[in-house]
Amino acid sequence: MSRSFDELLARVSECSKKKVAVAVAQDSAVLEAVEEARVRGIADAVLVGDAEKIAEIAKNDNIDINNFEVIDEKDNVAAARKAVELVHNGYADMYMKGLIDTKSFLKSVLDKEVGLRTDKTLSHVCVFELEGHEGLLFLSDVAFLPYPSLNDKVNIIRNTVEIAQAVGIECPKVAPLAAVEVVNPKMPCTVEAAELTRMNDEGEITGCVIDGPLSLDIAIDQEAAAHKGANGRKIAGDADILLFPDIHAGNLVYKTLTHLCKCKNGNILTGTKAPVILTSRSDSKEVKVNSIALGAIVAEKLR
Amino acid sequence: MSRSFDELLARVSECSKKKVAVAVAQDSAVLEAVEEARVRGIADAVLVGDAEKIAEIAKNDNIDINNFEVIDEKDNVAAARKAVELVHNGYADMYMKGLIDTKSFLKSVLDKEVGLRTDKTLSHVCVFELEGHEGLLFLSDVAFLPYPSLNDKVNIIRNTVEIAQAVGIECPKVAPLAAVEVVNPKMPCTVEAAELTRMNDEGEITGCVIDGPLSLDIAIDQEAAAHKGANGRKIAGDADILLFPDIHAGNLVYKTLTHLCKCKNGNILTGTKAPVILTSRSDSKEVKVNSIALGAIVAEKLR
Repeated sequence: MSRSFDELLARVSECSKKKVAVAVAQDSAVLEAVEEARVRGIADAVLVGDAEKIAEIAKNDNIDINNFEVIDEKDNVAAARKAVELVHNGYADMYMKGLIDTKSFLKSVLDKEVGLRTDKTLSHVCVFELEGHEGLLFLSDVAFLPYPSLNDKVNIIRNTVEIAQAVGIECPKVAPLAAVEVVNPKMPCTVEAAELTRMNDEGEITGCVIDGPLSLDIAIDQEAAAHKGANGRKIAGDADILLFPDIHAGNLVYKTLTHLCKCKNGNILTGTKAPVILTSRSDSKEVKVNSIALGAIVAEKLR
Repeated sequence: MSRSFDELLARVSECSKKKVAVAVAQDSAVLEAVEEARVRGIADAVLVGDAEKIAEIAKNDNIDINNFEVIDEKDNVAAARKAVELVHNGYADMYMKGLIDTKSFLKSVLDKEVGLRTDKTLSHVCVFELEGHEGLLFLSDVAFLPYPSLNDKVNIIRNTVEIAQAVGIECPKVAPLAAVEVVNPKMPCTVEAAELTRMNDEGEITGCVIDGPLSLDIAIDQEAAAHKGANGRKIAGDADILLFPDIHAGNLVYKTLTHLCKCKNGNILTGTKAPVILTSRSDSKEVKVNSIALGAIVAEKLR
C-alpha cells in the first residue's frame, strides 16, 4: 500500500515500464514533465503533434528529443485522435493532454472508434498527500462532474475505489461529505449520503466501506472524531476517499489544499479504458509527474 | 487596519473595556476562555447560570470567581433570557453561548422582547489568519445559513462588510466563490455571483467591491491570478471576504483550514443588535478568545 507519493513512485518502479501518449505535445511544461517521468523511470512518452515545434521546445529546455518517439501531426484534432488511438490499441498505456483545449481533448477521449470510452461514467480523482495527515486522500469530484446525481455518485465511488485499490488500499473508507453528520431532509446531499451508506450496507456497492453524511473533521481527524463521540461510526477520522456534494464544494476544498496547505498531489480522469492525465496549465511539474505516476499504477491494475 | 489577530487584539486594548454576558456559564472551556479574555484586558464577563456549579468549576480551574459578576439562575432557558437581556439593555456589549444547546440559545437571541433581533438577516462570519497569506480573510457563511438565496447573499455581504470595516478594512473586496470564474447558466451560483457584481457596480450594494464568480485561487492567490491572466479583474488574489455558494462548500473549506492548515481564527454571529459569540464545543480556547476579541471590536463599532 502506498501511503505517500514517494511510496507510490517506488511502487511504479516495480511495474513494467509504461508509455504515455501525449496529444499536441508542443508545450514546454508538458515536455519537462514527460522528460522528468522518463528520467525517473516512471514512463516513456510518445509525443504526437508538430514535430518541428516539439524539437525546438525540447532544444530550448535542454531535453534530448531522441529519447522520445515523435509522431508528426500539425493539426491538433488529428494529433489528439492519433495519440488516443495509440492508447486505444494498447501501444501506449495512458493518454495525456498537451497544448489542446479541454473540450477537443475530451472529444478524443470519448471518440467511439479510437477513444477510451467505456460504459462507465467519467469522473476525476485527485490524490493528496498532506503534511500532518497519515496516508493518501482521494478526492472526487473536484473538476469534472458539476452536480452529480445519486447515480453519478455511485459511479464516482466505484471509479475512485478502483483507483484507491490500485494504490494498494484493499477496502477504502468512503466519506460522503456534508456540513453536518446527521441526515437533514432539507439538505439533499445528506439524504443521498445516507442512501449511499445503505447501498453499501446491503451489498449494492462493494469493495469499500461507506459512512455518511460526514463532516470533514469526523472524516479525516481522529482526534476530532473521538472528541465528537464518533468512535462508534464506521469512519472516525480514517477516511480514504472524500466524496463531495458538488463541484463547488470539491473545487474550493481542492484549491484550499493546493494554495494554502503543504501538500503533494496528482490527478487523473477515470472511468475510461486507460488512465487519462488532464492536468491544468497552472499545475506544477511535480503535479504532472505525480499524475503520470498515478496513471502508471492504475494502468498496471487495468492490464 | 488589523492584518492579524495580534493586531486585532492590540486594537481591542484601544477600545473602552467591553463586557460579555454568558448564557449558562457552568462550562469549564467557556470559563477558561472568559478568564483569558479578562486577564488579557479584552473583556469582562457576567456569568449567568447555576452559581454553585460555576463556582465549583472555577475553583477546579484555578479561576478566582471574585473577578466576575455572577447571576444565579439554574434554569437554562431562564438563564439565557437573563443574559441576553443584559445585552439588550446595554449593560453588556456581547452575548456568548455557554452550556446550552444551540437551538435554545438562538431562541434567546431572537426573542422579541429581550433578544438582539434586528430587521437584518442573521449570518455567521469566520475570520482567519492564515500562515503564508497576507491579511485577514472573512468567510461567510460556513455555519448558519444552509442554502442562501440571492437576497440572503446580499444580506450576508452587508453583514460581513460591516465586520470587515469594524476591523479597519474600509472598502473590503468581496469574492462570490465558485468552481469556475466565468458565468455558466447551468451553475446557479455563478449567475448569482454575476448578479451580485452588477448590483455592486450599479450602487445597490455599497461600501465594498464585489467581483464574481471567482475561483478560490484567483480570489486569494496573487501569483495564480497573474498566471491565469486575471490582472484586469477588480479582484486578483486580494479578496478580503469569501462568499460561499452554500453551507456545504463553506463548512468543508472552513474545516479544511482549521484541521489541515496553520491558522488562527475567530467567529461571530452577526446581523444582530450586538455581537453574538457562538463557538462550538470543539473550538480551542484560543478560538473562543479570538471570537470575544472580534466581538469587542464589532461592539465598539456598533456603539
